[in-house]
Amino acid sequence: MVPVRTRVRFVETDVMGVVHHSNYFHWFEMGRVEYMRQAGVLLPELMAEGILFPISDVSCQYRASAKFDDWVIIETTLVDLSKVKMIFNYRVVREDDGVLLATGSTKNAFADANGKVVRLPIQYFERLKAKFSDETVGS
Amino acid sequence: MVPVRTRVRFVETDVMGVVHHSNYFHWFEMGRVEYMRQAGVLLPELMAEGILFPISDVSCQYRASAKFDDWVIIETTLVDLSKVKMIFNYRVVREDDGVLLATGSTKNAFADANGKVVRLPIQYFERLKAKFSDETVGS
Amino acid sequence: MVPVRTRVRFVETDVMGVVHHSNYFHWFEMGRVEYMRQAGVLLPELMAEGILFPISDVSCQYRASAKFDDWVIIETTLVDLSKVKMIFNYRVVREDDGVLLATGSTKNAFADANGKVVRLPIQYFERLKAKFSDETVGS
Amino acid sequence: MVPVRTRVRFVETDVMGVVHHSNYFHWFEMGRVEYMRQAGVLLPELMAEGILFPISDVSCQYRASAKFDDWVIIETTLVDLSKVKMIFNYRVVREDDGVLLATGSTKNAFADANGKVVRLPIQYFERLKAKFSDETVGS
Repeated sequence: MVPVRTRVRFVETDVMGVVHHSNYFHWFEMGRVEYMRQAGVLLPELMAEGILFPISDVSCQYRASAKFDDWVIIETTLVDLSKVKMIFNYRVVREDDGVLLATGSTKNAFADANGKVVRLPIQYFERLKAKFSDETVGS
Repeated sequence: MVPVRTRVRFVETDVMGVVHHSNYFHWFEMGRVEYMRQAGVLLPELMAEGILFPISDVSCQYRASAKFDDWVIIETTLVDLSKVKMIFNYRVVREDDGVLLATGSTKNAFADANGKVVRLPIQYFERLKAKFSDETVGS
Repeated sequence: MVPVRTRVRFVETDVMGVVHHSNYFHWFEMGRVEYMRQAGVLLPELMAEGILFPISDVSCQYRASAKFDDWVIIETTLVDLSKVKMIFNYRVVREDDGVLLATGSTKNAFADANGKVVRLPIQYFERLKAKFSDETVGS
Repeated sequence: MVPVRTRVRFVETDVMGVVHHSNYFHWFEMGRVEYMRQAGVLLPELMAEGILFPISDVSCQYRASAKFDDWVIIETTLVDLSKVKMIFNYRVVREDDGVLLATGSTKNAFADANGKVVRLPIQYFERLKAKFSDETVGS
């Protein structure tokens, strides 16, 4: 599990007084990017090689509302990995009181610049797999 | 089914050259708001009575990418309704060629200003139910 | 002057109950894109030729607040044009009562993919200039 | 001057490959919120007392582009303060190489829930003034 910490921005709230639900996908993305970085896979590097990573499925379950100025922690876990997809799960927790705000999941495919599905090159796959294995053993 | 039409904004794209996946939830919301409006339920009216409608669950499956300047149609259908929740399904179609870009679903609860779950007042429930029944009969 | 009409989205509001000020730049962009389209200049076409159009300066003066569900009209006028820059002015008006919500201005430069300033190719410049002249004569 | 640090999110980029210009206003806001926090003025506290702080004027000059994954530092300075307004200036600098990406300015008014202009209550004004004076003396 890789944690990332962020503070709720004013612009992320809506007229109901809480964080708009769509912003949790921005947070999941921050978590996913950090997970991959820790595995040694940088997205700008992938893009420079012409490899894209479109999202194919997402879901989120909201349990409690984040509010302006809250510190939240996004906990990201890789739960499935192959050369053609990766699935991450997320938990968003309010730092102050530990309350679970949301859980979610996203699935990425790998594609070339024309949107055609491709296999993730072996060097990137191996790095993600090593991190994935480490985490599984560690838990 | 209630259709809403929108044109992809430049700001909705990302460095992969397509619409960022989180924006589909903005579009679903536009569809949901319009569906409720056609049923005679206006969100500012609900809020003025202290009734909120937090999202509790969402999901989206992405099939093809929307691009800058595309016209897209969001087709919204109410698929489940009670006094404590409403579930909408969505299809996002590119107008130009009719390609299905995404499908999705959202669930709203009803709550008071403190976040406590409440029942939707009967006058609003009846309007949504009437629209829901009309659509079911019509299909 | 080229008008574009849009309806305030729920996600565009913030906890103060009105549209977040940053969204007016999304609306200005919609106006600018439409102005250029009417002149016969499509941004995807420019990008396909490797011409980018980074924003170098923006400003906005807010007079009154747009609220959720308001229809607003963005009125866009090209006020300065050369082969290396274009300056647009904007007025945002609430459709319902004609109240002026905001005025603003943006300046674009033209650049290649490496961010180096370039001159706008003559065919695009001529189209914008023709529209610019038409409007000036017409006013 | 109060610095805040943030990392460019993927969603903040656009199809031109850089951060969309509207996002700098989100960053300015983060800087302004932090400046006020350090002065002892919390926005949720103001709102709980029915005091709003609408933005009346903004501007931004863009010098270089922020890219995905860049760390940026937002440097915020209060440059004018009275009981009816506050003006902040900003500089956004890329941490890695110290390049100045943008400068900007924003003006807030103070208002009640109906949008009527009000004076900032003395206790909040004094805190901001103390911070403002400290900084002026210090520079």
